[in-house]
Amino acid sequence: MTEISLERGRRVLSEQPFSVLVGSKMQSLEEGQVELVLDLRKEHMQQHGFAHGGVVSYLADNTLTFAGGTVLGDSVTLEYKINFVRPAIGERLIARARVTSGGRSQAVCQCDIFAVKDGVEKLCATAQGTIWKVAA
Amino acid sequence: MTEISLERGRRVLSEQPFSVLVGSKMQSLEEGQVELVLDLRKEHMQQHGFAHGGVVSYLADNTLTFAGGTVLGDSVTLEYKINFVRPAIGERLIARARVTSGGRSQAVCQCDIFAVKDGVEKLCATAQGTIWKVAA
Amino acid sequence: MTEISLERGRRVLSEQPFSVLVGSKMQSLEEGQVELVLDLRKEHMQQHGFAHGGVVSYLADNTLTFAGGTVLGDSVTLEYKINFVRPAIGERLIARARVTSGGRSQAVCQCDIFAVKDGVEKLCATAQGTIWKVAA
Amino acid sequence: MTEISLERGRRVLSEQPFSVLVGSKMQSLEEGQVELVLDLRKEHMQQHGFAHGGVVSYLADNTLTFAGGTVLGDSVTLEYKINFVRPAIGERLIARARVTSGGRSQAVCQCDIFAVKDGVEKLCATAQGTIWKVAA
Repeated sequence: MTEISLERGRRVLSEQPFSVLVGSKMQSLEEGQVELVLDLRKEHMQQHGFAHGGVVSYLADNTLTFAGGTVLGDSVTLEYKINFVRPAIGERLIARARVTSGGRSQAVCQCDIFAVKDGVEKLCATAQGTIWKVAA
Repeated sequence: MTEISLERGRRVLSEQPFSVLVGSKMQSLEEGQVELVLDLRKEHMQQHGFAHGGVVSYLADNTLTFAGGTVLGDSVTLEYKINFVRPAIGERLIARARVTSGGRSQAVCQCDIFAVKDGVEKLCATAQGTIWKVAA
Repeated sequence: MTEISLERGRRVLSEQPFSVLVGSKMQSLEEGQVELVLDLRKEHMQQHGFAHGGVVSYLADNTLTFAGGTVLGDSVTLEYKINFVRPAIGERLIARARVTSGGRSQAVCQCDIFAVKDGVEKLCATAQGTIWKVAA
Repeated sequence: MTEISLERGRRVLSEQPFSVLVGSKMQSLEEGQVELVLDLRKEHMQQHGFAHGGVVSYLADNTLTFAGGTVLGDSVTLEYKINFVRPAIGERLIARARVTSGGRSQAVCQCDIFAVKDGVEKLCATAQGTIWKVAA
């Protein structure tokens, strides 16, 4: 069985060169829920000064996958969908994913992404996806 | 009416700091279809040496949005879903989006993302999303 | 402004011939949340004796739409996605939708569908969709 | 290996009580693609006289599942998303699904649903989903 620990989650995140490039951090990881955060910098923006949809998508994808992994062990993300509900403006993004339904082979997970501006969190996107256990 | 041209599309892409960070290029843009490409480097990977799902998602999101924009003008991506069908391994990713259905206010677009390895293209993800015209 | 009431919701449901054919009932409707129920009969099944995915989809689609309507008034469902997490077996299905994010023109809603067997509710599907206000 | 034939597909459809209730017919089935049709009657409508979103969803769900089954054999639909692009008005609905990517265990399929009015087909919805092989 795969060990579930924040330390291990952070190690995996640090072994993802793209996560290092983007600059996300893992805030918490426990069975069934994971939180990633990203301090927004100029390089995360699109042409209007909001965080790029690709940044928000990266956070959704990665947080969903980590959340599914806490109940499935080694696993892959089959698919997800994401709704953007408000421009992602502020000093930080927080992605919180939880396992909605975890079976032996699949976990359906949901993830809310919040933008924090002047200390106030507002939902800017919400995602739902399917994580699948890799056969041993 | 918004001008549709590859030159203008490339200018918008160059004004997205996150696209500059990731390094995507616009290969073509015409009414109803857009192609972005990304030469894969180490910094695009996840922990197993494949392109990160967030990179593939970024390409899907951005190419869908540009495709919708060719028929709607100023617009935003409301939502999309993406299926990952094969690890994204190779020297390059190509994202091709097309408008499946374009109305006055919404465009439904689809995008296939291919990984090119030793010159051979293989589908690695497919996405479908909703682009909405910004009210004038 | 559209009146929000269980009575009005039930009237609309009764004016949908397909809902009459399927046999769903509205259990509750208030601002931001709606519950539909369906007593399962043989005619709702697929070939293995579970409720057909189309029945579960119908419930998701309709409950999402009603939920969005409680905050938007006249509106249409642009799209939704649904994950099936467990066979829908039992004497009754319950669909509970809530508005996750409601703006002036769009509402993103989520819906859980439960199968009730011997009085025990189990999640069998979960959906997320976009409802759009019809311009006056 | 499961036999792929229109005859067998029609037999399975006839063994789905919900499909009998709705009244869909299988027009064609071959490896990687399936077509279902539905002659619209009053009982398929919602309150404005269009085919109900649940009817369109039923067709998408069922056609996607049959299409995946032509390459996977016994399988289940894990999830799908559907975009509604135009009111479903006319005398008939046609759902055409194809396998976009078929692997050993999963098939990603897409389905277009057309409304036929006065003999003219118009796209009214498009869907994308994941079909998973049931372990033997």
